[in-house]
Amino acid sequence: MLELRLVQGSLLKKVLESIKDLVNDANFDCSATGFSLQAMDSSHVALVALLLRAEGFEHYRCDRNISMGMNLNNMSKMLKCAGNDDIITIKADDGSDTVTFMFESPTQDKISDFEMKLMDIDSEHLGIPDAEYHAIVRMPSVEFARICKDLSSIGDTVVISVTKEGVKFSTRGDIGSANIVCRQNTTVDKPEEATVIEMNEPVSLTFALRYMNSFTKATPLSNTVTISLSSDLPVVVEYKIAEMGYVRFYLAPKIEEDEDDTKPQA
Amino acid sequence: MLELRLVQGSLLKKVLESIKDLVNDANFDCSATGFSLQAMDSSHVALVALLLRAEGFEHYRCDRNISMGMNLNNMSKMLKCAGNDDIITIKADDGSDTVTFMFESPTQDKISDFEMKLMDIDSEHLGIPDAEYHAIVRMPSVEFARICKDLSSIGDTVVISVTKEGVKFSTRGDIGSANIVCRQNTTVDKPEEATVIEMNEPVSLTFALRYMNSFTKATPLSNTVTISLSSDLPVVVEYKIAEMGYVRFYLAPKIEEDEDDTKPQA
Amino acid sequence: MLELRLVQGSLLKKVLESIKDLVNDANFDCSATGFSLQAMDSSHVALVALLLRAEGFEHYRCDRNISMGMNLNNMSKMLKCAGNDDIITIKADDGSDTVTFMFESPTQDKISDFEMKLMDIDSEHLGIPDAEYHAIVRMPSVEFARICKDLSSIGDTVVISVTKEGVKFSTRGDIGSANIVCRQNTTVDKPEEATVIEMNEPVSLTFALRYMNSFTKATPLSNTVTISLSSDLPVVVEYKIAEMGYVRFYLAPKIEEDEDDTKPQA
Repeated sequence: MLELRLVQGSLLKKVLESIKDLVNDANFDCSATGFSLQAMDSSHVALVALLLRAEGFEHYRCDRNISMGMNLNNMSKMLKCAGNDDIITIKADDGSDTVTFMFESPTQDKISDFEMKLMDIDSEHLGIPDAEYHAIVRMPSVEFARICKDLSSIGDTVVISVTKEGVKFSTRGDIGSANIVCRQNTTVDKPEEATVIEMNEPVSLTFALRYMNSFTKATPLSNTVTISLSSDLPVVVEYKIAEMGYVRFYLAPKIEEDEDDTKPQA
Repeated sequence: MLELRLVQGSLLKKVLESIKDLVNDANFDCSATGFSLQAMDSSHVALVALLLRAEGFEHYRCDRNISMGMNLNNMSKMLKCAGNDDIITIKADDGSDTVTFMFESPTQDKISDFEMKLMDIDSEHLGIPDAEYHAIVRMPSVEFARICKDLSSIGDTVVISVTKEGVKFSTRGDIGSANIVCRQNTTVDKPEEATVIEMNEPVSLTFALRYMNSFTKATPLSNTVTISLSSDLPVVVEYKIAEMGYVRFYLAPKIEEDEDDTKPQA
Repeated sequence: MLELRLVQGSLLKKVLESIKDLVNDANFDCSATGFSLQAMDSSHVALVALLLRAEGFEHYRCDRNISMGMNLNNMSKMLKCAGNDDIITIKADDGSDTVTFMFESPTQDKISDFEMKLMDIDSEHLGIPDAEYHAIVRMPSVEFARICKDLSSIGDTVVISVTKEGVKFSTRGDIGSANIVCRQNTTVDKPEEATVIEMNEPVSLTFALRYMNSFTKATPLSNTVTISLSSDLPVVVEYKIAEMGYVRFYLAPKIEEDEDDTKPQA
């Protein structure tokens, strides 16, 4: 028996919107400690990891570990029917091949039950080892999303270069080239507007903008994004979910074939 | 000679938007008592009835009963050229094959005349007898529109079931099923947010969601919608137009072929 | 060496949006007095003239006259990456085949450099003689844009007729005809809401609505538009750019083949 009651139901709506374009089908894993997901995107290039801790739910009952295979597009269709102020409860009976999403309006005058069929999905859980990163950048999530979108109008890849002074995003394409530098800035009025750089050594890595833009679908989940970079490790783009967990995206850097590290690759 | 001056011209714009997707061509009937329309939708499944009473116009002159055939899409194109605060006057000379829509801006600095060709349209006026309904549901029009839209993402038909406690909207489709229950609630701050149920006997009827969604185009006309249901009678979905009349939509229930009354039909 | 620093960078963004649909490639001419452009639209029917005077820039350095050929669509892509509050600096080295647009955020925390390749464009500069116009209409730019858009839903051409009392915009199409009259009105609260007519003799001229609608893309540049009309001269549709210059569009009237001056032409 599974029953997870989330007062701030809009969080779950936002989580789905942030990952459904990247992942078609995935297993949601439910245990005593939380509700989580780990999945590769459909082209097996990027990895998504979601965690919603049990403490973040108003009511959390999970009698035994279960893994529920869901089509994220169908799940998203159902969650879109929840109001932004609705309380969402996820329910499943033991051995059932369906999951039920219950939406309660704040006044309790409208109660909706959406029942969705579960799927059998083969998946292997990858262990993601803790790693030391050469540089960690924390910046406003809206700013990061804007930069990825802007650079996409010029080129296909972004070079992210971190120094103590700031982080530089560069691209090059047929119509020209672009460099955007965000300076470290911790003296802003609101902490979520700060750009903070922790750096052990400078890094400069190249990534496909298509994936970066896809990750920024998670922007509504958090005011800030954290980008962790090391040579030879996938970048981690993390959006924290207040008091509950996170959505993390992993993407391997592109290996450059020549010195020109901003040249777009086919 | 016909001259109808409507100070709140945006009402006429909203009326057109509410029916133009359902009906292509229709006769507007003008008499001493009011301006009205009755028309089947293009697939002859749903019926629309509009009434704008003479008292609702600032000036209402209709020397003799006339019936003016109009293409609603063209009429809508012209009415879209009226500002939302404009006064609209409908004018036609006796025997003319055109109608003129005059728009006056609130400051009277801008006066527009749009002249549209009339059409000959065969139509028979159906008598709609007064009927006793098993159940009448009054609810916020925005809520009804939201429910019809949400259920359309799951299935093709909606079962509307009324009991004394509330009204239930159900559907079923390939990806799962959905039930939305709205409880009777008359103790809200604003009367237009109430859900009120008058019931003589319980009813449960099935309708095509495509038509229901089309009817909800009338939502901007009224804060509330009234749904009148009886077995073996078409449902009436009514949007009142403040102090002037109404737009009513009629739709026959689907006859179920088996016990499973939420099964979508081809 | 060229370096033009424009504090209100959004002006340059708006200028590009106002002309990029009309003109594909054009030479920007830079001299000690200002930054200007003159170009025919791609079908060689309309002419665009832009002037941004040197005094309007915070810093203006132009060592010698140069003409820089740019693809306006690519330039627009780059300028869209500037924030609305950003300071924009246009930079070019002598003899360089690129131009750089630098965007500085108001806090100086984000600095972007976009480098675009220049093009060789053949163009001849037309001398536009000063002319006496029969009638000059100044009216709110939003109102003019609305009228051109509204009339486009009915017909393909607009007849603009000016008398001392007002200006009339007329069209005719398959579904009917339309006349919109704006009365001279100088007693409004805000000067930019006035409709002011200076008339030496009445004029009535016909223009293609497709071009008029294209000109109205400049509406965000100015609250008012000035329309200068003479028989046998191209109309001038001018949007002033506060304290800096203007965007002007020139379009020849259509010659009517019969008396019916509102008949649409192929």
